[in-house]
Amino acid sequence: MLSLADLNAARARIAPHIHRTPVMTSRTLDAELGARLFFKCENFQKIGAFKARGATNAVFSATDKELRGGVVTHSSGNHAAALARAARLRGVPGHIVIPTNAPRSKVESVRRQGGEIIFCEPNVAAREEACARVQAETGALLVHPYDDWRVIAGQGTAALELMEDAPDLDVVIAPVGGGGLMTGTTLAVKSVRPSARVFAAEPEQADDAARSLATGVRQPTPTGFTIADGVRTGLGEKAFSVLREKLDGVLLASEAGIIAAMRHTWEILKILIEPSCALPLAALREGKLAVRGLRVGIILSGGNLDLDRLPWQEAG
Amino acid sequence: MLSLADLNAARARIAPHIHRTPVMTSRTLDAELGARLFFKCENFQKIGAFKARGATNAVFSATDKELRGGVVTHSSGNHAAALARAARLRGVPGHIVIPTNAPRSKVESVRRQGGEIIFCEPNVAAREEACARVQAETGALLVHPYDDWRVIAGQGTAALELMEDAPDLDVVIAPVGGGGLMTGTTLAVKSVRPSARVFAAEPEQADDAARSLATGVRQPTPTGFTIADGVRTGLGEKAFSVLREKLDGVLLASEAGIIAAMRHTWEILKILIEPSCALPLAALREGKLAVRGLRVGIILSGGNLDLDRLPWQEAG
Repeated sequence: MLSLADLNAARARIAPHIHRTPVMTSRTLDAELGARLFFKCENFQKIGAFKARGATNAVFSATDKELRGGVVTHSSGNHAAALARAARLRGVPGHIVIPTNAPRSKVESVRRQGGEIIFCEPNVAAREEACARVQAETGALLVHPYDDWRVIAGQGTAALELMEDAPDLDVVIAPVGGGGLMTGTTLAVKSVRPSARVFAAEPEQADDAARSLATGVRQPTPTGFTIADGVRTGLGEKAFSVLREKLDGVLLASEAGIIAAMRHTWEILKILIEPSCALPLAALREGKLAVRGLRVGIILSGGNLDLDRLPWQEAG
Repeated sequence: MLSLADLNAARARIAPHIHRTPVMTSRTLDAELGARLFFKCENFQKIGAFKARGATNAVFSATDKELRGGVVTHSSGNHAAALARAARLRGVPGHIVIPTNAPRSKVESVRRQGGEIIFCEPNVAAREEACARVQAETGALLVHPYDDWRVIAGQGTAALELMEDAPDLDVVIAPVGGGGLMTGTTLAVKSVRPSARVFAAEPEQADDAARSLATGVRQPTPTGFTIADGVRTGLGEKAFSVLREKLDGVLLASEAGIIAAMRHTWEILKILIEPSCALPLAALREGKLAVRGLRVGIILSGGNLDLDRLPWQEAG
């Protein structure tokens, strides 16, 4: 597991390469919920998501010897662009395995960051096989999107900054998918401010984290559809080991609630957030946690999405 | 005309009631244009637009006697919500004449601010007639959306803040419609930093400001369509008198360029801006001004728009 010293070391390590993102507040949203809300804007982070933190920490904490073949990962999302970028900054090759059905914008994003793209068939077996082949051929270091302590430590640095800019928080909420952000956040908050409670927010239709913690058995990747594409992933082993012990609970949000919270955030805060990013506010607006009078920190995880068609238009 | 002392007085007067908005930068956009760009984010302003500044200055610089009947204006845009809000803060009635065809979201926004709405037929004569009737019945003070020195002074305070946060600017650009923001900006910049050049950005399809300055004769409200709905207004008299003397030029942007710059800003900066707000960046991306190596301040005027349907979807 990770200590506060590990998190602080990660923070110092990645500071030259990432944004210290701002914390936004809104009297309108505060009035609606009867609480003080503090939004940590990782949508303004490099590559548009918190993933820049973990990937950068993993790459910059590896030794030259570990990196002699560069790095490799399989991802069609924000981790892909984040790892490609971190590899470029470190001056080593970044091999990114991407399924052939990934959105073109994601592929372009990886390419822009200088990633070397290997396409594979869109299924888990093909992804892992392609990844293993790249490792065998190049000796590249695998950087998993979330089940990696260095990645988790990097993701936890957002909460460290949030607690500095918004002191005395009573509650911190982040979205949970594979659990990298959630685990880093939980470890950071419980180390720095043990009295604060930490909650994960998850779609009702992909509630594997809630069921994993309720049953004590890690549940597989959810198969149900959710608009929150960034969290269509089951909890990693490392995440599960931490969260089952330290997390205060999981808040579920409905699909309609996620879409409404996303649009509301756009309209009120005038910032772009992706659907997964709306989970915490969606759960609060659906009354899943009593926050009246409390100071609540929310990690806005990212702002990458396809602007051709918006979720409320799909629904309409 | 206004002195720097007037602008500074306006700034002090409205400071308790408005946001000091942040200035954003982007290495991606800087690299694209070969310049350093500083975006003054008035989309994060109260009511979502710079209009909060001018309306607040007008209401708070009026005497109790002037305000005994409250204030009145005709507008279906951001000035309506801004004036309703300022009146509420000052504790006087805010009468807002709105055409019956105004978008519901705009009407709701005025209502939320506590404005007293008077509907009128959607034409200039009906608007002015309704406004005059309210004035006659209530003795309310008319606060024009732009052709008013107190409003102009308020709008100029955004540039004062921008020049503090982004010193040594070579160029400042803002959108121009009726000219309140443009005139306040020009007076502020030419007072504080006379070496900086100031440009207005305007749609090619509603280029009355460019033609007014070129011909020396104030041109009427443009009749052509533009997606930039916030600037479908001819220059006011006061604006014309200042801009013909002090403005360095007008940069025109195509409709396609406005839409592309708007979307690009959303994607790169992860913030919502309305179409009019994209005019300066659109003109720069279309090469209308040589800015290579320069420090360029851009006033992002506002972020209020209908999210049901986006301009690039209309065009598609």
